[in-house]
Amino acid sequence: VSGVPAGGKHILADLYGVAAGTLRDCRRLEELLRGAAFSAGARVLGSHFHSFGAEEGVTGVVLLAESHISIHTWPESGFAAADIFMCGAAHPEQALTFLIAALAPTHQRVEKAGRGLGATEPEPLTQDLSGQ
Amino acid sequence: VSGVPAGGKHILADLYGVAAGTLRDCRRLEELLRGAAFSAGARVLGSHFHSFGAEEGVTGVVLLAESHISIHTWPESGFAAADIFMCGAAHPEQALTFLIAALAPTHQRVEKAGRGLGATEPEPLTQDLSGQ
Repeated sequence: VSGVPAGGKHILADLYGVAAGTLRDCRRLEELLRGAAFSAGARVLGSHFHSFGAEEGVTGVVLLAESHISIHTWPESGFAAADIFMCGAAHPEQALTFLIAALAPTHQRVEKAGRGLGATEPEPLTQDLSGQ
Repeated sequence: VSGVPAGGKHILADLYGVAAGTLRDCRRLEELLRGAAFSAGARVLGSHFHSFGAEEGVTGVVLLAESHISIHTWPESGFAAADIFMCGAAHPEQALTFLIAALAPTHQRVEKAGRGLGATEPEPLTQDLSGQ
């Protein structure tokens, strides 16, 4: 299973107390996420962002050769949910540091999960419901 | 903070033992993820998929009004890393059930994290390094 990403890391970051103007600014968020990818040493395949309206939030993703970075924002609450998933030699923590420096939240909740090899043992699935 | 997503759920699914042909098939994976979104009652904003080559893996995302579903595949290892993040009234577990039924992994590792309100208390960030 040499191709299973060893040391794939997935970071979930809930960021509170971010300026509403930033969380509504689709182009700025796209630049931020591309910057975060660059700071992590990841290769950007493309980025796709959607604004829900001038006064509304943004949802977007940067697809990477190493996986992805996404963000979803709720400007009315100063809240952003980001996730950073990178395999290979990229440095997802650098991307997180970049995002936090740029978004300047007052509070955060960060969870990290291992993906692929090196994480906990996967469980077998019994899909035969006939009684095996 | 009424706009912070209450009950936002993020599911990380590592799927092992999936048929290589499926994991190389960009169009089929895009259809699967759109189907998973539909089965969850989510609204698709757009989908973006990238094949790394005819014999290689695929990386892709479906952006949703409720957040996103992504997949990254390693066909040479029969491995796929999916994540399903949904806020609001959508049903991310339905999307997971749909994906597992379609991809038929032999083993899986699934982690679930709460996002936004209803998850654990966020921590304050001290960004002033000068000493208060």
